[in-house]
Amino acid sequence: MTGMKSDIEIARAATKKPIIEVGARLGIPPEKLVPYGHDKAKVSADFIRSLSSRPDGKLILVTAINPTPAGEGKTTTTVGLVDGLNRIGRNAIVCIREASLGPCFGVKGGAAGGGYAQIIPMEDMNLHFTGDFHAITSAHNLLSALIDNHIYWGNEQAIDSRRVTWRRVMDMNDRALREVVCSLGGVANGYPRETGFDITVASEVMAILCLAEDLADLELRLGEIIIGYRRDKSPVRARDIRADGAMAVLLKDAMQPNLVQTLENNPAFVHGGPFANIAHGCNSVVATRTALKLADYVVTEAGFGADLGAEKFFDIKCRKAGLQPAAAVIVATVRALKMNGGVKKDELGQENVAAVVAGAENLARHIENVRKFGVPVVVAINHFGSDTEAEIEAVKRCAARQGAEAILCRHWAEGSAGITELATRVADLADAGTAHFSPLYPDKLPLFEKIERIARDIYRAGEVTADKQVREQLRLWEEQGYGGLPVCIAKTQYSFSTDPGLRGAPEGHVVNVREVRLSAGAGFVVAITGEIMTMPGLPQSPAAERIFLNEQGYIEGLF
Amino acid sequence: MTGMKSDIEIARAATKKPIIEVGARLGIPPEKLVPYGHDKAKVSADFIRSLSSRPDGKLILVTAINPTPAGEGKTTTTVGLVDGLNRIGRNAIVCIREASLGPCFGVKGGAAGGGYAQIIPMEDMNLHFTGDFHAITSAHNLLSALIDNHIYWGNEQAIDSRRVTWRRVMDMNDRALREVVCSLGGVANGYPRETGFDITVASEVMAILCLAEDLADLELRLGEIIIGYRRDKSPVRARDIRADGAMAVLLKDAMQPNLVQTLENNPAFVHGGPFANIAHGCNSVVATRTALKLADYVVTEAGFGADLGAEKFFDIKCRKAGLQPAAAVIVATVRALKMNGGVKKDELGQENVAAVVAGAENLARHIENVRKFGVPVVVAINHFGSDTEAEIEAVKRCAARQGAEAILCRHWAEGSAGITELATRVADLADAGTAHFSPLYPDKLPLFEKIERIARDIYRAGEVTADKQVREQLRLWEEQGYGGLPVCIAKTQYSFSTDPGLRGAPEGHVVNVREVRLSAGAGFVVAITGEIMTMPGLPQSPAAERIFLNEQGYIEGLF
Repeated sequence: MTGMKSDIEIARAATKKPIIEVGARLGIPPEKLVPYGHDKAKVSADFIRSLSSRPDGKLILVTAINPTPAGEGKTTTTVGLVDGLNRIGRNAIVCIREASLGPCFGVKGGAAGGGYAQIIPMEDMNLHFTGDFHAITSAHNLLSALIDNHIYWGNEQAIDSRRVTWRRVMDMNDRALREVVCSLGGVANGYPRETGFDITVASEVMAILCLAEDLADLELRLGEIIIGYRRDKSPVRARDIRADGAMAVLLKDAMQPNLVQTLENNPAFVHGGPFANIAHGCNSVVATRTALKLADYVVTEAGFGADLGAEKFFDIKCRKAGLQPAAAVIVATVRALKMNGGVKKDELGQENVAAVVAGAENLARHIENVRKFGVPVVVAINHFGSDTEAEIEAVKRCAARQGAEAILCRHWAEGSAGITELATRVADLADAGTAHFSPLYPDKLPLFEKIERIARDIYRAGEVTADKQVREQLRLWEEQGYGGLPVCIAKTQYSFSTDPGLRGAPEGHVVNVREVRLSAGAGFVVAITGEIMTMPGLPQSPAAERIFLNEQGYIEGLF
Repeated sequence: MTGMKSDIEIARAATKKPIIEVGARLGIPPEKLVPYGHDKAKVSADFIRSLSSRPDGKLILVTAINPTPAGEGKTTTTVGLVDGLNRIGRNAIVCIREASLGPCFGVKGGAAGGGYAQIIPMEDMNLHFTGDFHAITSAHNLLSALIDNHIYWGNEQAIDSRRVTWRRVMDMNDRALREVVCSLGGVANGYPRETGFDITVASEVMAILCLAEDLADLELRLGEIIIGYRRDKSPVRARDIRADGAMAVLLKDAMQPNLVQTLENNPAFVHGGPFANIAHGCNSVVATRTALKLADYVVTEAGFGADLGAEKFFDIKCRKAGLQPAAAVIVATVRALKMNGGVKKDELGQENVAAVVAGAENLARHIENVRKFGVPVVVAINHFGSDTEAEIEAVKRCAARQGAEAILCRHWAEGSAGITELATRVADLADAGTAHFSPLYPDKLPLFEKIERIARDIYRAGEVTADKQVREQLRLWEEQGYGGLPVCIAKTQYSFSTDPGLRGAPEGHVVNVREVRLSAGAGFVVAITGEIMTMPGLPQSPAAERIFLNEQGYIEGLF
């Protein structure tokens, strides 16, 4: 857009308020904020405990159509909506995830929104922030070290070194660590075995931190982690090697949610960041609950499109934390709908109403799906300069056919002024009390049937396949008492199906469950369909090569 | 000691001042402090730059006799001396190293002093603190990832994958990572090769951060790191794969020194923490220089005994940073001298003047050595309840024979009140201006002769041996322009010799240089004598098993 500043230019030009002032507006006394610099703070655990008897505000989920390389702007819309709500006189807080450090050095990009709808300080958010991910890395790797140390010193728990499932993590894109043989070099270094590293956001510790109610619950869940199996296939837990206490100590500060602000100085909680494939992809329960006590409206987002993100938000996070979402916003862009309608990326600049109409099938499906959870929906059309009137009208017509309203939003270019219509509509919808939230399936449904329910009702698959080993593993876990857990499906984010190339609204496809994993501490069973990468690599020309400090000490090349 | 509280009880009973008040006493305006909680802050880089024209205070080194399992209390004395100096009306600041996280989970212990001479908050100091070590870990491992990524995508720099010397790091005691084979699992994961992990404090990035003058110098030094060699044995530097800028970005905040306080609310800079064997073992140059601008006396310590710690402090840190130490304190305890005199640990409770006299040979040697650098010495006898009058007198007589005063200090039990005599003597000594500091050897001495000079003058070795390969490597580095660097000898800390069992003051022994390494970014050549462990392991019953959060949310078992 001509004359538009870059995200980082806008962020640097913003007038930040001292974080103490942002907290004061929420009624948080300065001594209950734990500052990290002048523009970030953690909210102290005792202040959070003091809020328990207060009523909750309304919870609003921002989700999206299936993502495309065209970009949808889910975080941007989440941030913009909160600025819009505050602009129309409603108290609203953003709740989003923290960014992972590793990917920043691969492809240029940020996780703090964009344009005039951003969280600041964006540099910090994309780097070490308040150290939460480093704490998670440490806690995870302490458990790893304790496992090999236990085996080294006699292996009292009789862990089968071939069946250690707990790997190590690093917050880095490092393909060389995906598969390693460790403990080489002789007697003093232990028993050689195959293992590897995942990126920190894929750690079960991350998922646990984001689902735990408080420190006591955190320690309990850490103890439940299954680190591997004995020769008789009985599980060995973190508690069995007495790792849970020290892990909780490492996570003590990380459990407190981080308060920052939007460009318009509205409060934002940025806390936790689990993967949206092998985990549930939402910010922490602690942050969401705290925000609900402090504001009338809390706007949060979930990873990927609504098929993965919203489903997990509802079936895992809301179910487990007892949250009652009041409304959902589905973000779409004309460009992304055109891609869903078959247009190539380099042809997105040309008007193509037919492609918008075709791609809007994807949007229509997500509207239907979200309503299955009893949550009312409004569509946000995140405006791009190349959108034409006819294209925008086509999106509105498609939404209207589903009985939903689609509202054009210009928050990226205009900030809160560009999103007041959506804000008003969302507030009205939430206030109307029409939501009657309920998860998709009951706890007591057998695990495989839970997978089938999601695949049929949300993905619209014709069949779910899995070989005997997978089905038997699920039955074994049911016998061991894990049958009541929700399932977390790892699937491509680009399609309702397991084929990333199948855009739009496919039906009748086959979902094959290749592998299942038990996250006993986090409290869900992961069903893996297709290839899931838990340790990314860097590209041929990584962003890291162009990142540096300029002569003023500002970071260049990160965004 | 009967009725004596534990370190952690004393620390928790202390009345902490808000860190803003501690900074205000030093003339640091609140907006120039970057707070981490209410009791820790970084001093902003622009404030540090604004100090450049101020005169420097006096720099005082606290060093020690060779360490024994009896404990000497070097950090305790460093902290106590600053409290003592402030008590007698002198402005003084502590400068010490940050603690490594990994070892905390192995053996119970802290790195913040002890008794009534501690730095607070001690829990934070022994855990994540302000995240500096995590930043160093990230910067180090980003370089590692970029190396394998460079090889993966075509290896434009023709790095010989067998000759990659840059490993990975983790702030954890994890023996299983000492030697690994990475990049297994097929084409997508790269070229399998042998590598391994060191603990973060062993990273050259740590040494660089501690020696760099400012961010610009940091980035320059990071670029100089040699990451490996080509088939023609020419070095490949971090700059060659464009890693330096992004590494500096990750270290931007970590470069700012951390301000905390003593139990008596006196200011303490705690910043950086390189190993004292393969690196120089001192806190950062930035912290020391900043402290010298803000106080009349700056008390700092160096790792291990004076043979390693003081020598490296003088020959590496002071030489490179242009620091002029005004006085040195050598810490000894009656118990440690008895061990140096041949007494076993379980017999230390019995009076044994003869053993004290025999062990004091070790002390006498260190007094002689420190004076070779032109720095006046006073001995601190760190009092233990079991010390007898006769034993203390024996230490004083031994020091007197060297023309040095030995002063009994009771700071562990009494805080500043117990160390005023030492404080007065040290201040007088520093003010007298008798120091005429000079490093042990000139820059231009050939590398092997530098090693010989240290071995002969400080260790009192009869001979330095090294095989042809080692000598040729040193000559090659001289040809490549590295001949002017100081040497950093990695030797056992338990003896002047390379035999850890040889206590007291051995002479005429042989020092064999087994291996040499070039830390081109840090700016020294490492000469390794004997086995040096750069990745510790955990013991059979690691402290981690007994660390937990109690019901009040306090950490138990860490100290």
